[in-house]
Amino acid sequence: MKYCSTCGHPVEQRIPQGDNRHRYVCVSCETIHYQNPRIVAGTVPVWEGRILLCRRAIEPRYGYWTLPAGFMENAETTIEAAARETREEALAEVNIDGLYTIIDVPHINQVHMFYRATLIDGTFGAGEESLETQLFDLDDIPWDEISFPTVRKTLELYLEDLRSESFQVHVSDIRYSIKDRK
Amino acid sequence: MKYCSTCGHPVEQRIPQGDNRHRYVCVSCETIHYQNPRIVAGTVPVWEGRILLCRRAIEPRYGYWTLPAGFMENAETTIEAAARETREEALAEVNIDGLYTIIDVPHINQVHMFYRATLIDGTFGAGEESLETQLFDLDDIPWDEISFPTVRKTLELYLEDLRSESFQVHVSDIRYSIKDRK
Repeated sequence: MKYCSTCGHPVEQRIPQGDNRHRYVCVSCETIHYQNPRIVAGTVPVWEGRILLCRRAIEPRYGYWTLPAGFMENAETTIEAAARETREEALAEVNIDGLYTIIDVPHINQVHMFYRATLIDGTFGAGEESLETQLFDLDDIPWDEISFPTVRKTLELYLEDLRSESFQVHVSDIRYSIKDRK
Repeated sequence: MKYCSTCGHPVEQRIPQGDNRHRYVCVSCETIHYQNPRIVAGTVPVWEGRILLCRRAIEPRYGYWTLPAGFMENAETTIEAAARETREEALAEVNIDGLYTIIDVPHINQVHMFYRATLIDGTFGAGEESLETQLFDLDDIPWDEISFPTVRKTLELYLEDLRSESFQVHVSDIRYSIKDRK
C-alpha cells in the first residue's frame, strides 16, 4: 500500500494514537488503513465413500490436486462461500454436513475453513479453475500431488476420523519458519 | 474506495475478465482491489463458574456489556487474537479451552469466532476500551444491556450447553433485513 484509497495522497507507516501496531495512515486525510487476515472456505465433498478432488488449472500449484476452496466474499456466510467454491471449481452441488477444520496460516494472513459435505446427486465436472475433477477412493488419494498443506492436513484428519467413525471440529495452525519458506 | 492504493489513480467498479463480481479496478495500473470479510475473535472467559464481561468504553454500544473480542490482526492465529483481545480489554490471561461459536454476520462482512477460555489466576481489570469488567453469576447476566447479537447468542448457547454439560462447536449466522436495520 502506497496511496490512500480514500483521498489518493501518500500513506506512511506509523502507530496511530491509542494503538500499538504500525498501520498505513494517510498523510493528508489521516485515514487509518487496517489490514486483516482473509478466510479461505472450502469443502471435503464426498459421494458414496469417495472424496472429490480438483486438479488446479491456475497458479499457485498448477496441476496439483486440491479440495475445492477459495477466498470468502463480502456479503456471504462461510457455509455459502464453501458451497459456492465447490460449485465453481467442481461444478458440484453439495449439502453441508458440518464444520470440519479451521487451520490458521498466520505467515500468509489466512484462515482456512473446511466443511464436510455430500454431493446432492453425484454429478460434478471441471470448473474454469480446474483441469479435471475426480472421485478418489480413500486408498487412492494422490498424496504426492496435493496442492497445499491445509488441504493435506484436512484430508489426513478426515481419513483418521473416518476410521474412528467420529467427526470432530479440528482447530490447528500451520506455521513456516523462514528456513521452510525457501 | 476511490483511489488505487498501489498507484494513486482513481478506481472504477467493474467485473474483471474471468470474474463474476464487481470489483474496484484501477483505471491506470489495472490492479484489482478485492474486499473480503473480517474476523472478530474473542473468548467466553470463565472463572469459578462465573463469566467475565466488559462494559464498553467505546462506540458502538458505549456502556453496554460485551465478551472481550475484536478484529483479528495479520500474522496471528484466531486463538492468539482471542487471547490478545481478552488481555487488552479485560487485562486477563486465559487458557483457551476450545472453539465455541462461529457466527457469520454477512450484512456487515464479518465472521465472529468465540473460544471458551479459563482465567489462569482469576485476576482481571479494565483495559482502555472498557469502563469496567466484572465476573457475573450465570443468573445475573445483564441481558438487557448486552452489546451485540453475536455476544448474546454466544452467551445463550453457553448457558444452554452448561445445563446439558456438553459443549459443542456451534456454527450459525445472524442476518438482518433492511427493516430490522432501521
